Amino acid sequence: MTTAKRIILDCDPGHDDAVAILLALGDPRIEVLGITTIGGNQTLEKVSRNARVVCTVAGVTDVPVYAGCTRPLVRDVEVAADIHGDTGMEIHSYQLPEPAFDLADGHAVDFIIDTIMSEEPGTVTLVPTGPLTNIAMAARKEPRIVERVQEVVLMGGGYHVGNWSAVAEFNIKVDPEAAYIVFNEKWPVTMVGLDLTHQALATAPVETEIAGLGTDLGDFVVGLFGYFREAYKNAQGFDDPPVHDPCTVAYLIDPTVVSVRRAPVSVELTGTLTTGMTVADFRAPAPPDCHTQVAVQLDHAGFWRLVIDALRRLAPPS
Amino acid sequence: MTTAKRIILDCDPGHDDAVAILLALGDPRIEVLGITTIGGNQTLEKVSRNARVVCTVAGVTDVPVYAGCTRPLVRDVEVAADIHGDTGMEIHSYQLPEPAFDLADGHAVDFIIDTIMSEEPGTVTLVPTGPLTNIAMAARKEPRIVERVQEVVLMGGGYHVGNWSAVAEFNIKVDPEAAYIVFNEKWPVTMVGLDLTHQALATAPVETEIAGLGTDLGDFVVGLFGYFREAYKNAQGFDDPPVHDPCTVAYLIDPTVVSVRRAPVSVELTGTLTTGMTVADFRAPAPPDCHTQVAVQLDHAGFWRLVIDALRRLAPPS
Amino acid sequence: MTTAKRIILDCDPGHDDAVAILLALGDPRIEVLGITTIGGNQTLEKVSRNARVVCTVAGVTDVPVYAGCTRPLVRDVEVAADIHGDTGMEIHSYQLPEPAFDLADGHAVDFIIDTIMSEEPGTVTLVPTGPLTNIAMAARKEPRIVERVQEVVLMGGGYHVGNWSAVAEFNIKVDPEAAYIVFNEKWPVTMVGLDLTHQALATAPVETEIAGLGTDLGDFVVGLFGYFREAYKNAQGFDDPPVHDPCTVAYLIDPTVVSVRRAPVSVELTGTLTTGMTVADFRAPAPPDCHTQVAVQLDHAGFWRLVIDALRRLAPPS
Amino acid sequence: MTTAKRIILDCDPGHDDAVAILLALGDPRIEVLGITTIGGNQTLEKVSRNARVVCTVAGVTDVPVYAGCTRPLVRDVEVAADIHGDTGMEIHSYQLPEPAFDLADGHAVDFIIDTIMSEEPGTVTLVPTGPLTNIAMAARKEPRIVERVQEVVLMGGGYHVGNWSAVAEFNIKVDPEAAYIVFNEKWPVTMVGLDLTHQALATAPVETEIAGLGTDLGDFVVGLFGYFREAYKNAQGFDDPPVHDPCTVAYLIDPTVVSVRRAPVSVELTGTLTTGMTVADFRAPAPPDCHTQVAVQLDHAGFWRLVIDALRRLAPPS
Repeated sequence: MTTAKRIILDCDPGHDDAVAILLALGDPRIEVLGITTIGGNQTLEKVSRNARVVCTVAGVTDVPVYAGCTRPLVRDVEVAADIHGDTGMEIHSYQLPEPAFDLADGHAVDFIIDTIMSEEPGTVTLVPTGPLTNIAMAARKEPRIVERVQEVVLMGGGYHVGNWSAVAEFNIKVDPEAAYIVFNEKWPVTMVGLDLTHQALATAPVETEIAGLGTDLGDFVVGLFGYFREAYKNAQGFDDPPVHDPCTVAYLIDPTVVSVRRAPVSVELTGTLTTGMTVADFRAPAPPDCHTQVAVQLDHAGFWRLVIDALRRLAPPS
Repeated sequence: MTTAKRIILDCDPGHDDAVAILLALGDPRIEVLGITTIGGNQTLEKVSRNARVVCTVAGVTDVPVYAGCTRPLVRDVEVAADIHGDTGMEIHSYQLPEPAFDLADGHAVDFIIDTIMSEEPGTVTLVPTGPLTNIAMAARKEPRIVERVQEVVLMGGGYHVGNWSAVAEFNIKVDPEAAYIVFNEKWPVTMVGLDLTHQALATAPVETEIAGLGTDLGDFVVGLFGYFREAYKNAQGFDDPPVHDPCTVAYLIDPTVVSVRRAPVSVELTGTLTTGMTVADFRAPAPPDCHTQVAVQLDHAGFWRLVIDALRRLAPPS
Repeated sequence: MTTAKRIILDCDPGHDDAVAILLALGDPRIEVLGITTIGGNQTLEKVSRNARVVCTVAGVTDVPVYAGCTRPLVRDVEVAADIHGDTGMEIHSYQLPEPAFDLADGHAVDFIIDTIMSEEPGTVTLVPTGPLTNIAMAARKEPRIVERVQEVVLMGGGYHVGNWSAVAEFNIKVDPEAAYIVFNEKWPVTMVGLDLTHQALATAPVETEIAGLGTDLGDFVVGLFGYFREAYKNAQGFDDPPVHDPCTVAYLIDPTVVSVRRAPVSVELTGTLTTGMTVADFRAPAPPDCHTQVAVQLDHAGFWRLVIDALRRLAPPS
Repeated sequence: MTTAKRIILDCDPGHDDAVAILLALGDPRIEVLGITTIGGNQTLEKVSRNARVVCTVAGVTDVPVYAGCTRPLVRDVEVAADIHGDTGMEIHSYQLPEPAFDLADGHAVDFIIDTIMSEEPGTVTLVPTGPLTNIAMAARKEPRIVERVQEVVLMGGGYHVGNWSAVAEFNIKVDPEAAYIVFNEKWPVTMVGLDLTHQALATAPVETEIAGLGTDLGDFVVGLFGYFREAYKNAQGFDDPPVHDPCTVAYLIDPTVVSVRRAPVSVELTGTLTTGMTVADFRAPAPPDCHTQVAVQLDHAGFWRLVIDALRRLAPPS
C-alpha cells in the first residue's frame, strides 16, 4: 500500500490556490501537514484569512495555517488585484463565511523548518503556489532542510510563456531572488509553469459539472470561477480562466496527469526585459545531476476528474 | 508585372550565408544591389573572402562586395568556429577557387547608406544574415535611412529557441547592442529566427537532389552541407544541419513559404542568463503600430524548391 | 545619568571584529545583549568559535553567542581568507584557548527578532560588522523590528573606497541583496565604511602601547595585529592594518570620535563593475527624511584611547 | 622648437564647449584641424550652429565644422536644457551673430577617420567634450585609427563625483556604450572629469577680468558666464559655474595646469544606480600597460590665465 504524500502547501489564496487547497484536502493520496501563507496575489493578511475561509468552507478545521512573510526579499510588494480582486478571493453569488479557526502560533518559515527537521528525511514535500519567499527564507535560515525535503513541486514560471511580463510569470517575477534560491538549491524541483497551467482551463463543461454537484462547496468553486473567468477575460483576454495552482497537487497525486521534462532551470535576476524569467535550457539532454524538471503537458480531463472527485469527497452530493 | 525585390545582403559566410547568396543571385525575383560583409561566423577578412568565393563559384562577378565592421559595437569578438571551421566556410571534397574579383572600394556602412539615400525611398530591402553591426552603424551614422528602407528581413534570434545560450542565438548574442538598435528603429523588421530556421534542415533527400544536378555548383553546395552536417552534429547534436540564412531570401521571394506573426520584439542587453535574447511579447494581439514580426512556420518542400531552382538557374545541368 | 547603549553585535570574527567585541565588552557605555555570528570573513562554524574564543580571552562568559546564517541570500559564499587566514582569526605568538562556553540555543535571526520585540521600542541598537544576511533575514521575517530598533550602525561599504572590487567593500559585496535590504529599510543607518575605517590604522605606537599593558589580553591583541599587519601588507599593500569593525562601537560610545554626514545611500545590485557598491548621493543636501548617514572622519587618537581603555578595564595591568 | 598640438575638437556647444573652442583657437600651442559636433547638451542641429557661431564671434572662419551623430548608440536622446537652455548656448546681454560659414560637407565620423588616416601616425589628438558617440563610431568603422591617434583627452566622467546621477556625469551617462568603447580601446585616454572640472569655477574675479578686456569677444564670454552662472545655481546649487570643457585643452597646452593620476578606468553599463559611472581602480598602483589616467588637481589661476590670454590673442584689447 502506498502512503499518502505528505505536503506543506505554501500559498497565497487566490482563486486557484483555493482549488489547490481543496484538491489537497480532498484526495486521500495527499496528507496536508500544514498550510503556510505568503503575501502575493494579495497582502499576507488577506491571503491568510482566505486560506482559512477555504478550509472552513471545506469543513476542515484541523489543518494548521501559519502566516509567513509579508513581502519579497528584495523587490517592492506587488499584488495581482487585477486577477484576484481587492480581497484576493472575490467571488460571484456566494457568501463567504468567517474563518472558523485562528492562525496557528508561530511563523510559516519556522513551521516549514521544524516540520522538515522533525519528520523523517525524504518524507515531506513542499508545494509552493505563490511567491517563493517563505521557502527561500527557510532554506537560508536552516540549510539542512534542503537535503531532507522529498521534493519541491511549485506553481510558477514558464519556459515559453509569461503573464507578468513578456517572459515572466507573476509568482517568480514578484520575488525573483527567492525563486533563484529555490531553483538553485539541490533539491528536486518540478516547475509547474504557465506552459502547463494555461492548459488547465475551467471550461464551461467543467463548471457545469461542478455546479451539478449541488453542494455548497460546489457553489463556492463555481462562484470563484465566475469571478476568475471575468477577471482573466478582462486582464489577459482568456475565454476560460486557467486554474494554475492545483496542477501541482494533481502531479503529486497522479504524475500521469502532468507530463514533465528534465532540463536545467534558473531565474534571471538582472534582465531589463527578462527579470523573473525561468530560463530552461533545452539545447541538450539534461545532465545526469540535473535536479529540475518542467511540466509540459496536461491531461485536461484527468486533471478535472481529480478535482471534482476531491470536491465530492469533501462534500458528498446528497 | 512585379519587379524584383532589390536587396543588400549583409552577411558573414558561413555555410548557410553561402546558400543565401546563391538563392538571391539565382532567383529572378531578387536583385542583389550589393553584398556587405561583417565579422561574425569568422573574422571579417575570412568572410569577405568567402563571399567573393561564393560569387565566383556561382559565376557572378559583377555584384560588388564591400567589407564592413570587424567587430561588435561593445562586446568582445566571438566567432562560430565550431560550426563553420577555421576558414568560416570549410568544405568537404571540393576545391574552392580563388575569388575572381576584389573587394569594392569603400566601407560597407557607407555603401548601405549611399545606396539607400540615392535610390527611391521604399525600394531597398536590407537582408542581414550575420551580426547586425553594419546595419546599426548605418542607422546611427545616417538616421534618415530608417524611413527610406523598404524593410529589414534578418536571420537571427528566436522567440523560443537559443543556440549560443539557452535563449539567445549567435548573430544577436555576439552584438546585442547592434541588434537592439535594429529592432528598435521604426522600420519594418522581420525576424527569421531559430524557431523557423531549425525547420530548414538539409535532409538526405535534399542533398541527393542537389548532388543529382551534376553541376560544379551543386557539388559546391553538397560539399558545404557535408562539412556543416558533421559540425552541427558534433556541436549541437543535430542529425541534419539547419540552413538558416536563405530563409530570409525565401521569405522575400515567396512569403507563403515562411509564415509570420506580428509581435513586439526587443533585445535583452543586461541579463545574466538572457543577454542577446530576442524577447517577443505574445501576450496580446500586436498593437497597430507594431513594426516587428517573427517567422513561425516553414514550408520545407517549398523552401528547398526555391533553393534548388536557383542553383539550376545559376548553373543549368547539362 | 546616561544609560549604556544596548547593542546586539552581529559579527564574523575576524581580527577587527575581535577588537570590536573587546571594545564593546570593555566600555561601560555599551551593554552587549548578545553576540550573533554570520558566515563572512570565514565560515559560520569558524567565526562562531572565534567569537567565543574572544570572549573567553576577555574573561566574559555570560554574553550569549548565537550562530546565524551560513551564507549570503543569493550569491555564492566568499570568504576573506587572504586577510583573516584559514581559521578566520590567525594570530602571531599567542596560544588561543578553547572557548569556555557553548553557543546559545536558537538561531541568531530569532535572537535578534525576539530581543527587539521584547525590549522597549527604541532601546536596542544593531551593530553589524560582517555581511548583513542575519539582519536582512530578521527584517524580512519580522518586519516590525524595523520601527522598534534604535539604530543600525554597521561596518561596511565606502562612498569613495573599495577593497573587494574597485568600488565595493567585502561585507557589502558578498551579500549585496542583504545590504540593499538593510539600507532601504526606514531605520536610521550609519554606514561606517572604508572611507572612515582606513583611517583606523593599528600603527606601531598603538601596538607598542597595547603591548605595554603587559596583560594576556594585550598580548592577544598584539598577536592579532601581528598577523593582520602582514596579511594586509601582502593582500592590499597597507603599511599598517586598518582595524575596521571597532569604529562602529567607538561611534556609539562617543560620536565625536567618528564624524558623519547625512546622505541617501543605497546598494548597487546589477552593475558589471559596481555590484555591491554603496552609492551615496552628495549632489544636494540630504532630504529631511533621509535616514542614512556615512562616517567621514576619524579621531585616530581618540579612537585608540577608547580601545586601550577598554582593554585596561577588561584586564587591568598589574 | 615644439610644434603645436594638432587636435580635432569634438564638442556639443554648450557654454563651456564655447570656451574650449576659444582656448583652442587662441593658443598658439594648439592647432585645430577641425571641429566636429555631436548631439549632447542640445540637439545636433543646435550645437552645430553654435559651434560656428563661436568661431564667427572669434573671427575664425577657416576651421571646418563637421556635423556628426544625432543621438547615442543605444540609449534614448537626453539633452541638458536645464544647464544650457533651449538653444544650447543661451546668453545674457549679448546678441549672437549668424554663423559666417556653412557646415563642411561630409560626416564628422569620416572627417575624424580620414584625418587620422591621412596624417602621420601619432600626430593627431582627439579632444571630445561631449558624448563620445562620434569617437566610438569612428573607432568601430575604422579600427586602425586607434593606434594612429596620439591621445584622447576628454571631458567627461568623474571618479568620485557625478552630476547626471549620484555617480555619473552627463557626457558619459547619455551614451555609456560609446564611452565604454572609448575607454576600452588601447589608445592613451586622459579623463578630465568632474573631480577636476568642478575646480574650474568662473569666479567673480575671473568674470571681472574678462569683462575688463573691453572686447566684443570678452563680452560674449561674460554673457555666456552670466547665463551659465544662473543655470548652474538653479539646477545644481553652484555659486560659481564650473567651466568644464576647456580644461581638456588647457591640459594639452600646459600639463602642469592639470595634474593627473594613472589608473584603470572603465564604464559601468548595467548598473541600476551606477550606469554611466566611470569606475577608476585606485586600489593598487596602475599596471605598466595602463593606458588611462584621470585629472585630479587644477591650477585655477594658471587655467584662467591660459583662457584669458587666448581671448586677448583672438581679439586684442584696444
